Amino acid sequence: MHIAFDADDTLWHNEPLFNLTQSKVAELLSDWASEEDLGPLVNDIERRNLALFGYGAKGFTLSLIETALEVSKGQVSASVIGTILDAGKAMIEHPIDLLPGVEETLEHMSKEHPLMLITKGDLFDQESKIARSGLAEYFSTIEIVSEKNSKTYRELLTRHDIAAERFVMIGNSVRSDILPVVSIGGNAIHIPYDNTWELDQVEHRGAESEGFFEIAGISEVPDVLQRIAALGW
Amino acid sequence: MHIAFDADDTLWHNEPLFNLTQSKVAELLSDWASEEDLGPLVNDIERRNLALFGYGAKGFTLSLIETALEVSKGQVSASVIGTILDAGKAMIEHPIDLLPGVEETLEHMSKEHPLMLITKGDLFDQESKIARSGLAEYFSTIEIVSEKNSKTYRELLTRHDIAAERFVMIGNSVRSDILPVVSIGGNAIHIPYDNTWELDQVEHRGAESEGFFEIAGISEVPDVLQRIAALGW
Repeated sequence: MHIAFDADDTLWHNEPLFNLTQSKVAELLSDWASEEDLGPLVNDIERRNLALFGYGAKGFTLSLIETALEVSKGQVSASVIGTILDAGKAMIEHPIDLLPGVEETLEHMSKEHPLMLITKGDLFDQESKIARSGLAEYFSTIEIVSEKNSKTYRELLTRHDIAAERFVMIGNSVRSDILPVVSIGGNAIHIPYDNTWELDQVEHRGAESEGFFEIAGISEVPDVLQRIAALGW
Repeated sequence: MHIAFDADDTLWHNEPLFNLTQSKVAELLSDWASEEDLGPLVNDIERRNLALFGYGAKGFTLSLIETALEVSKGQVSASVIGTILDAGKAMIEHPIDLLPGVEETLEHMSKEHPLMLITKGDLFDQESKIARSGLAEYFSTIEIVSEKNSKTYRELLTRHDIAAERFVMIGNSVRSDILPVVSIGGNAIHIPYDNTWELDQVEHRGAESEGFFEIAGISEVPDVLQRIAALGW
């Protein structure tokens, strides 16, 4: 069995850093918009810039600066722009905060299987986070890609000579880690990141269908892999 | 023989776009510094930010905004910041301008050898440039890395099971394409990008030593490969 993990919000906290940065910026721009109104505007600008910037903290920082210019109709001060730039940098160099059970689970699993890390985003930023996480030693293969769709996974599996039915992807994102893998005949274990959502959906835990599994935390991965093995591989 | 090409300033013009963008910004900031004084300041800020941003147009744009804030002591207007942001975007989506002879040479060579592309920088930006260049079809392998040093090349050769002495790297950068490859026992063909420098150094053309070769343009690559082959491989 070939086992791959996503990184952001699967191995370490990531989304809260983006949210925190956006909240800081909302406060700076409170003369022009409430935090509630600013959110959709940031999203629109990010979406508009995605084809130019791709994913990651640098593009996000540029989009926040653009938001400040737009919402203030060009009235924002240089000092606010400087504070946004600093908030972007602080996000990039923020210490890596591992999710519970990650280190123990990876240490344990890496003794039994070669593990892959498949992460999406800014190459430099992802490499820096992997290095700072202290987890690199547990992975025999690290792949950083700009988008995670079925084409990406098909190419990765071909390159590493892995049959889809022998591949298991583990991650928090239904769009990036689960659906494209299941769609090419692979297996996916979903670990929802958001705690509230996780509790709300607790009745779906362990739901198994068509190569799809859902668990509450990374510590449950070895058990699910045993269940997958028992299903006949 | 395994043949790899660099991309920026080897297959297409890149540096002039950065220079042009920097000149535009210098003009915007001319109230606070001359273009001559601004250059070193931009370089300092880029160097200072390299550990956070890595290489590429997004980090460059952020560094230009930081330069504007710094050189104006926070007096720069939001409208100038907006113009810098737009200049950064224009650089990112600028059409790809191939160097002379590139398409013909790659088309010809790709019929005889599988070709690799090894390029450094922003993952998303590099993928976009490769796609827009129309050259992707000539390469059997494309590797985008965050830094090109001897460790990077050693890992790439191990991953692709290539002996260093059977590897030829072709590129414009002595630091990134030539020295690290020669240092691990590989071969490198230097195509200096800057035309003036190229003409100045014309007496060194074809200098051969320790796996190092220098030529004036990509069209000469097939001849050099024949010379390399004649040296005994």
